[in-house]
Amino acid sequence: MTRTATQDLVLDDARIAELAQQLRVDAVRAAAAAGSGHPTSSMSAAELVAVLLARHLRYAFDQPDHPGNDHLIFSKGHASPLLYAAYKAAGAITDEELLTFRKLGSRLEGHPTPRLPWVEVATGSLGQGLPIGVGVALAGKRLAQLPYRTWVLCGDSELAEGSMWEAFEHAGIEGLDNLTAILDINRLGQRGPTRHGWDLDAYARRIRAFGWNTVQIDGHDVDSVDEAMDTARTTRGMPTAIIARTRKGRGVVAVEDREGMHGKPVPDPGEAIRELGGVRNLRVRVQRPQETERPRYGGAPQAPLPRYGVGDAVATRTAFGEALTVLGTRRGDVVTLDGEVGDSTRAELFAKEHPERYIECYIAEQQLVAAAVGVRACGWTPYAATFAAFLTRAHDFLRMASIGRADLNVVGSHAGVSIGEDGPSQMALEDLAMLRALHGSTVLYPCDANQTARLVAAMADRPGISYLRTTRGETPVIYGPDEEFPVGGCKVLRSHPEDQVTLIGAGVTAHQALAAHDQLVADGVRARVIDLYSVKPVDTQTLREAAALTGRFVTVEDHRPEGGLADAVLESFGNGHAMPLLTRLAVHTVPGSATPAEQLHAAGIDADAIAAAARKLVAS
Amino acid sequence: MTRTATQDLVLDDARIAELAQQLRVDAVRAAAAAGSGHPTSSMSAAELVAVLLARHLRYAFDQPDHPGNDHLIFSKGHASPLLYAAYKAAGAITDEELLTFRKLGSRLEGHPTPRLPWVEVATGSLGQGLPIGVGVALAGKRLAQLPYRTWVLCGDSELAEGSMWEAFEHAGIEGLDNLTAILDINRLGQRGPTRHGWDLDAYARRIRAFGWNTVQIDGHDVDSVDEAMDTARTTRGMPTAIIARTRKGRGVVAVEDREGMHGKPVPDPGEAIRELGGVRNLRVRVQRPQETERPRYGGAPQAPLPRYGVGDAVATRTAFGEALTVLGTRRGDVVTLDGEVGDSTRAELFAKEHPERYIECYIAEQQLVAAAVGVRACGWTPYAATFAAFLTRAHDFLRMASIGRADLNVVGSHAGVSIGEDGPSQMALEDLAMLRALHGSTVLYPCDANQTARLVAAMADRPGISYLRTTRGETPVIYGPDEEFPVGGCKVLRSHPEDQVTLIGAGVTAHQALAAHDQLVADGVRARVIDLYSVKPVDTQTLREAAALTGRFVTVEDHRPEGGLADAVLESFGNGHAMPLLTRLAVHTVPGSATPAEQLHAAGIDADAIAAAARKLVAS
Repeated sequence: MTRTATQDLVLDDARIAELAQQLRVDAVRAAAAAGSGHPTSSMSAAELVAVLLARHLRYAFDQPDHPGNDHLIFSKGHASPLLYAAYKAAGAITDEELLTFRKLGSRLEGHPTPRLPWVEVATGSLGQGLPIGVGVALAGKRLAQLPYRTWVLCGDSELAEGSMWEAFEHAGIEGLDNLTAILDINRLGQRGPTRHGWDLDAYARRIRAFGWNTVQIDGHDVDSVDEAMDTARTTRGMPTAIIARTRKGRGVVAVEDREGMHGKPVPDPGEAIRELGGVRNLRVRVQRPQETERPRYGGAPQAPLPRYGVGDAVATRTAFGEALTVLGTRRGDVVTLDGEVGDSTRAELFAKEHPERYIECYIAEQQLVAAAVGVRACGWTPYAATFAAFLTRAHDFLRMASIGRADLNVVGSHAGVSIGEDGPSQMALEDLAMLRALHGSTVLYPCDANQTARLVAAMADRPGISYLRTTRGETPVIYGPDEEFPVGGCKVLRSHPEDQVTLIGAGVTAHQALAAHDQLVADGVRARVIDLYSVKPVDTQTLREAAALTGRFVTVEDHRPEGGLADAVLESFGNGHAMPLLTRLAVHTVPGSATPAEQLHAAGIDADAIAAAARKLVAS
Repeated sequence: MTRTATQDLVLDDARIAELAQQLRVDAVRAAAAAGSGHPTSSMSAAELVAVLLARHLRYAFDQPDHPGNDHLIFSKGHASPLLYAAYKAAGAITDEELLTFRKLGSRLEGHPTPRLPWVEVATGSLGQGLPIGVGVALAGKRLAQLPYRTWVLCGDSELAEGSMWEAFEHAGIEGLDNLTAILDINRLGQRGPTRHGWDLDAYARRIRAFGWNTVQIDGHDVDSVDEAMDTARTTRGMPTAIIARTRKGRGVVAVEDREGMHGKPVPDPGEAIRELGGVRNLRVRVQRPQETERPRYGGAPQAPLPRYGVGDAVATRTAFGEALTVLGTRRGDVVTLDGEVGDSTRAELFAKEHPERYIECYIAEQQLVAAAVGVRACGWTPYAATFAAFLTRAHDFLRMASIGRADLNVVGSHAGVSIGEDGPSQMALEDLAMLRALHGSTVLYPCDANQTARLVAAMADRPGISYLRTTRGETPVIYGPDEEFPVGGCKVLRSHPEDQVTLIGAGVTAHQALAAHDQLVADGVRARVIDLYSVKPVDTQTLREAAALTGRFVTVEDHRPEGGLADAVLESFGNGHAMPLLTRLAVHTVPGSATPAEQLHAAGIDADAIAAAARKLVAS
């Protein structure tokens, strides 16, 4: 892949300059047709994309899943008109489709999403494309040995996001020479000048300090851009950042380098198109990818999941680590990522057995989830683990992953007050609310080791974001190793035809509900007990049956009262189904430090509190 | 504040070394008494804290609200035993209290929280102390001209967090020479070596690139530490990072620089204490702060809030900006922060009127919220604004702020699908779930401009985190400018003694519910309409009355079905109150691009959908 290899392409420098103008014109036309969009943010990067497309990108638009394809990610997703104009120039979409931009039903959304076959990940929340690109590059360099390159177009405003620096650090340390960040330094953010304006050195100093090669260029000079991309392709041992000085709205006087021109069509599109030399229909022949084999994952599908004896005390986090390790043996596509807490999440068990498929992300939860999204985009099956509390750090990445329909497995340990002495900063009390509210998510919360093992395996093939919530402390094994736990199901642990109340828990509170049941029996109160291990989707039928029989529910969760178990239960009674009377036990205070048992008691979610609530509800 | 000023203090170098050993011994003792905790992470920084306490910190422990007090933040909050040992050495707590560490009811929690009067902000989620410290330093340098310094003790593991680099960038650009980051480079994270180990240059290169002064020292050499802190205090125009090479568990062979010794008591505390020279009871006299005036905020309390005419079309985001600007005139303590989208959130209106109290945080939402927390810790009343969707980026900071009982006003614009063409990446559809689940939060979602203005003013004095959700598009003004909107209330917009169903909306959906009401009237269906502008706390009484009368609710929200308006409504019926039949209209799909009206229709949350749901529910 030296310069010589690209010289027999059709476009000379002058024609590439023409192509850049075409991209500008098409961005202007698309936004004008839509009545909204970001043409000026597209125009600054026109030469960058034109040169990339014509001379450096290797991509089969007719085979978007070709394993040798380069990856092109618009981290500045708002420059979507430029991306779509490039698709047109490559012959992937028609001019007619280009002009459906931002209209109801169009694939050409305001910000790119995988509704388009050539878009792998959703962008538009700034600061995500490069972190995800690191995952893509890691997959190509470390997980499989594939010859593709990853090109990420970044804006200057998004360089203020800490997530970009997590990505620079991760890529620098891993020496990802198959990754190029193309920085479109157009000086103007949404509301005015960026912090560093055209001080390219300011960016270069920072990025070099993180172990990258940097090249500073005039981003409108075709030859300089070409040379910089050559450098990026031939630099070994480190990723390259092409830091390009550009002008926002370049080529149209009414908007070029002017404030107040962000995120709107140019004022006079006809005049702008004339200024840019009119509509063109250049067609660029993008280089084909190298022929290459799709990775063969292999594995030993019969490797047995761990089995735990009923009555043993095992932490669900430990069962997670042990089951994941076996899953990694069964399936060569399973990759584990962790945020430097693998000894706590137990992801380290996987790391010991499958070091080649373990990615240590250190304490950088945004990068953790972004790398998982990138790895997934290349076909792997990632599990990303950290303390559940710290997944809040990656909330926006999870949100964007759900928009991008990423199939992602996320594991949060140390849930709830039951962690004990470490105190509230380490307790996940909002994670169920966060994960449930993501579109298409699955939320699982096991209470014993055998259940955990089954759910870990079940997650692997679920579409969308699947979340497993694990517990720090040991809990007794209550299910046999051959019991099945379908996603969307629940377990009725205690039942009697004359039950007066239903106790619903999950994780640690399932055990408290069982203990409460025994207290209530002694008082002559009959309580049904449900283990709601599948918090989303929830077992509507079983809950409705329990409501029809008992009419009274006590829900108990090691979580804030909002957005968790109780709300999941109540969703079963939407659309006109009569609801049971409900008492909701949850964590209403800010806990301090205390033992796990003291914490459950203080929060009012232990067996005593459940039994008391049930007695009161039955008497009401 | 030169070296001379500190020389008349009681402790010479040898005595400071003794003090450091005392801090170690007390950290070992506290963790041993607790049976958990992080003594080894404390021991590495003992000299750093001993020198700071004895020679550089100016702090009146008997007046924690003294405006001249320095600020000491443990960004590595898990080193709490060291902090508490320092409090003991300063005479702030007794040895008896030290040994209550991590026990039920103790103020000395596993990670520091403001339950202690000398702790301003909760830490323990890594990567937050320095970003907050930037806010504290900004308050001292820019908002008031106060002579205090801000000292932040950071760990090396947390330097992987992007939020730290947002903080380095913010502080560097602002030239915060009143801020010192003390980096305890002890080489070992939780599960093993950090990325850079003892490569102090790796850290120094990165931090210098962000505009900081750096000093590299042996962190166990009292004289070097002292000199570095002198340098930090005397360096002008830039913040200083003291990069200290240290050894985790320093002084106790069984744990010093050994892996696997994180976050647990030392194996043999008695032997460790002997090795460290035994228990000591040195008492250090911390320098008093400079006498200084508390800032006088001033303001024109009578400045009238903006008034809007009924029937006018005004975006609530615009009303927010206009009302906030007046609030800034009324109250000199109001500070506004924005993430480089002030033209969209309308925070720029405040910026134009009160530039001295406007903090531009660029696209760095973690730093945005952290700076607000820091500014608040100094007594100011901050409003932090960005797109509601991007507040997810700061979720962990909001979570920690709620643990720290910070009084914080947060404003999210561009909520829901009603933003239109920009598409899902820019739509907040999970924000109500996120904000409701925070402990002690207030969640407000106005539907018109007069309501917005009142709520903006009401937020200022609410305890805890108050969230205002605003809308991009214009909505008709339906309330008069003198109407009042108590937090925790709602407005019954349409009612009749024979109402058959209650329609509940807020923001854009309140208007859709009104339109649905009119459709239903034409069909002979009587519908009550409630504007639930206060989503948390929710008006339980009015909702129960409506349930008792109509028995049927249709909730409609521009948000995911989980964790938002419907769940808030159902919380009113906890603890055994009979629930109404409920149909929950919300955004169940991933939207694409389309006009606002098309979006509301496609999501099934427009007037037609509400009317259809109501008809069906009434017929059931």
